[in-house]
Amino acid sequence: MFQGFTYPEKIILASRNTNKIEELHVILSSIGIKLRSSLDFPELSDVAETSESLEGNAYLKALYTFNMTGYPSLADDTGLEVEALEGRPGVRSARYAGEKATYQENVYKLLKEMEPYENRKAQFRTALAYISEEGTFIFQGVCEGVILREVRGDKGFGYDPVFKPHGKQQTFAELSSTEKNEISHRGKAVEQFLRFLRGMKVSGE
Amino acid sequence: MFQGFTYPEKIILASRNTNKIEELHVILSSIGIKLRSSLDFPELSDVAETSESLEGNAYLKALYTFNMTGYPSLADDTGLEVEALEGRPGVRSARYAGEKATYQENVYKLLKEMEPYENRKAQFRTALAYISEEGTFIFQGVCEGVILREVRGDKGFGYDPVFKPHGKQQTFAELSSTEKNEISHRGKAVEQFLRFLRGMKVSGE
Repeated sequence: MFQGFTYPEKIILASRNTNKIEELHVILSSIGIKLRSSLDFPELSDVAETSESLEGNAYLKALYTFNMTGYPSLADDTGLEVEALEGRPGVRSARYAGEKATYQENVYKLLKEMEPYENRKAQFRTALAYISEEGTFIFQGVCEGVILREVRGDKGFGYDPVFKPHGKQQTFAELSSTEKNEISHRGKAVEQFLRFLRGMKVSGE
Repeated sequence: MFQGFTYPEKIILASRNTNKIEELHVILSSIGIKLRSSLDFPELSDVAETSESLEGNAYLKALYTFNMTGYPSLADDTGLEVEALEGRPGVRSARYAGEKATYQENVYKLLKEMEPYENRKAQFRTALAYISEEGTFIFQGVCEGVILREVRGDKGFGYDPVFKPHGKQQTFAELSSTEKNEISHRGKAVEQFLRFLRGMKVSGE
């Protein structure tokens, strides 16, 4: 039985990516929450992403971190979902062309596979899992766009050079990181989480 | 150990609105899920929407229904967020002009308050909370548009007569319910939830 929701003092982010950590640190400190990460807990190992869904992988990472640290924990997983490919590469986005595939190999495989398709619709989706004593909370963010027929731009990473978000003329790899964060799936998932936290703060007072 | 998410046989919608119930019933039955609602559980009372966010209110309603019925439960909350008013009326949309305010009183207050502003940008936003044994899942749908300077149309409800969605010449109150559902915030939030359910089904096979 759920007891409700407690506003956290401290959250552990299941990540060693310093960009992600710094970005979230700034946001959370503005609402009075301390952020720690996997970097502060050397005993944490990497979690195998064995789930068939983004939600499942985010959940597995947050659960491990919560069990090991005892603090409310947050983890995310992101995938590119292409309509003509029935949602692929999805949860396999980072290893689409094989377990140790480079970004370029993944992008090349995608472009090749997409060649026959006129329908270029795709979306980036982030699932964010937050686990505390009260249970598991899953948030998500989506950014819709299209897959181009060739790469454009050299910023970002992964499928960014072939993904053009709706409402922009540039690919994710041509936008500045600030411009990308404003409209990105990950930014939107974090926004959902923050709205939820803010809502719970007031109602718990 | 994580067993994966369970595809639900039955979902309880925390609502007594027969239009909402019927609409979701049709959608869910097409993917083999039975829908029940607060109408089927006379012991359920109304939940006070005490949160400061749409996400928080949707969560509180779904949580109560889940705790009372033991079945996976779904609840939503919707608000109109106006850019020039820093997101107001937002979570207070239904009671903007006072606790017992009519739609007309709310709309009138909004038009009055918006008079000095050239920036008419606004969005309707729906937060959807789904709670099952596995945890809490939050989805959202957004419909962007502008606030007109006078009312137009007599369909729909709430702020529909002054909200013109992007890409349409008509207000929400001039569109048929089918046309409105196709582009609406609530429709999009439900679509996100369905994608999530379908994903669980596939990953559970």
